[in-house]
Amino acid sequence: MPGVDDGILFPAERLHRWTQRVFEAVGVRQADAALLTDSLMEATLRGVDTHGITRMLVAYVKRLRAGVVRVKTELRLVRDYPSTALVDCRNSIGQVGSHYAMRLAIEKARAMGVAFVATTHSNHYGAAAYWAMMALPDGMIGFSATNALPTVAPTGSRTPMLGTNPFAVAIPAGRGSPLVLDLATTVVARGRIALHAKQNKPLDPGWAFDEQGRPTTDAQAALNGLLAPIGGYKGYGIALALDLLCGLMTGSSYGTHFPAPAAELQSPRDVGAIFAALNIEGFMDLPEFKARMDTAIHEIKACEKANGMHRIYVPGEIEFETKAKRLTEGIPIPEVVVKEFLGLGHELAIPFPAP
Amino acid sequence: MPGVDDGILFPAERLHRWTQRVFEAVGVRQADAALLTDSLMEATLRGVDTHGITRMLVAYVKRLRAGVVRVKTELRLVRDYPSTALVDCRNSIGQVGSHYAMRLAIEKARAMGVAFVATTHSNHYGAAAYWAMMALPDGMIGFSATNALPTVAPTGSRTPMLGTNPFAVAIPAGRGSPLVLDLATTVVARGRIALHAKQNKPLDPGWAFDEQGRPTTDAQAALNGLLAPIGGYKGYGIALALDLLCGLMTGSSYGTHFPAPAAELQSPRDVGAIFAALNIEGFMDLPEFKARMDTAIHEIKACEKANGMHRIYVPGEIEFETKAKRLTEGIPIPEVVVKEFLGLGHELAIPFPAP
Repeated sequence: MPGVDDGILFPAERLHRWTQRVFEAVGVRQADAALLTDSLMEATLRGVDTHGITRMLVAYVKRLRAGVVRVKTELRLVRDYPSTALVDCRNSIGQVGSHYAMRLAIEKARAMGVAFVATTHSNHYGAAAYWAMMALPDGMIGFSATNALPTVAPTGSRTPMLGTNPFAVAIPAGRGSPLVLDLATTVVARGRIALHAKQNKPLDPGWAFDEQGRPTTDAQAALNGLLAPIGGYKGYGIALALDLLCGLMTGSSYGTHFPAPAAELQSPRDVGAIFAALNIEGFMDLPEFKARMDTAIHEIKACEKANGMHRIYVPGEIEFETKAKRLTEGIPIPEVVVKEFLGLGHELAIPFPAP
Repeated sequence: MPGVDDGILFPAERLHRWTQRVFEAVGVRQADAALLTDSLMEATLRGVDTHGITRMLVAYVKRLRAGVVRVKTELRLVRDYPSTALVDCRNSIGQVGSHYAMRLAIEKARAMGVAFVATTHSNHYGAAAYWAMMALPDGMIGFSATNALPTVAPTGSRTPMLGTNPFAVAIPAGRGSPLVLDLATTVVARGRIALHAKQNKPLDPGWAFDEQGRPTTDAQAALNGLLAPIGGYKGYGIALALDLLCGLMTGSSYGTHFPAPAAELQSPRDVGAIFAALNIEGFMDLPEFKARMDTAIHEIKACEKANGMHRIYVPGEIEFETKAKRLTEGIPIPEVVVKEFLGLGHELAIPFPAP
């Protein structure tokens, strides 16, 4: 989903400080609030507003205050192999368990070569890219994925059974920006369909199905129906494999076993997630790898443009540019969200700052 | 690409024995010929004829006889961590290096929890599923991917830069068949477009681009052009990440660095591949996992059918059914391929058997 471009511009630093104070005010420990804030603010800076404060802050605060997400973290290492681990998050904040799991994966991969850590009984963890990118400063390739509430039907069906189940891969480069892939396994996000419905615009073919599981270009029918997975049965297969790894294998919910979206403020979400780190030194000296990456990225960007195209992007490039822009120009917060933030700040006696 | 349904039926056992003798006749050691034959015959039995003897046998024999693939295996373990390894295949038969790499991954994962082994300077390795499925008897989840000669352009470009870069995941179940996902990162295979061109049938929108990188439904224009990746820029990103892991990170060819397809009988292909095994016991007791898998597969198959659909498949199900059918009814070999096999058998003095 594209970022929000309209709105009142706020300096990142001011939003960051306020967000952290909000989480502390609802009882989150300082270190955990810092982690949670950093994950949301990083998505916001990168223009991934679906996973930043614009869309998530108020929702997170509601869940924390309703007690449906545990305010004080309680993690438990349930299984521990030299290269794998299972972390029971006991309904703690998704970001806190994810940070612990990904750090553990990086430390294990340093000595072992690769590591794979899973979390269970967790919550929404923000943007998948944030966790994959944690491996970059250590010269490793990072990977993460999570399962999510069902919005996708298996091919041939009309029962929502699978989430958009996003995954991310981060690969370090040398002088250039790292390659960061972060994608949901559906052709488009639900938010994009909602936007088309609002504007009475037809959808592109292949984006969605109606309630009966028939392909549709009617945005309203799609909102009552299903998102289409990428590549048809291929995306169904990818989303299913991720659901089984993140949900079924970890002992979390999977498939249709999640609480209904309407129970958002009553029942824990109970998602799982997976985190992996791959030590590049197990295959190639890091400086050589980074030099090769710089060459590869240059080669891609120098490809012949397709008819009517002006630029070729590598995965993650747009987000790095958006971050640079938002750091200097400020972060656009839509007026309706500013109003929400003012209300929340008033309620918690932590006034939302002026732009 | 769908399997071949027309042709003369041969018993699997007879084809298997003949294929193995053919490989031995061109100088492949008996144990290596057995591996190679098993990989090709398994694809043939599963109906994946693009990767079985129907399409690959004569091509493999040509490359072996031309000396462009080393007949006698020479593998070298280049780097070795507790959970990772890099195997230099020194242009040996792809299947032989792959078998070594995947066995090594399984053994490492037994003690470590997870393992990730890569091959470099290798050759075509057959169907990705074969390697992922090797993990199943050990109660592990298997994964494999390879890079391939470029047929896909980065989004926005018209330069073929990436292969279809297939990957496979195999997940054990209990009483039911395991879940086996094996997919190329393009919407359709080139073979399917060639078939439409032959029949003068238009393509579905979203399958391909012409030489200029414009979307096309003209099959002939698509054959001169590019395959479309699944989910547009998403599939481009997946194919790129796999190319970097399989090719760039292992020191093999990647991107446009492969020899031209016309040099098929002069230059080694120099592909790389990755193999991973994940020990389920690192997360859940295997019997519990298998029981949960049986339930999940049942739940998927019991979903409401979409309008006009009669059955919901889980990944791999069609291939297991085809294998059962071909084992009892025989394997269909198209007449034109039977003629090729008769010629090859005559040349090597290993007569191709009667049906």
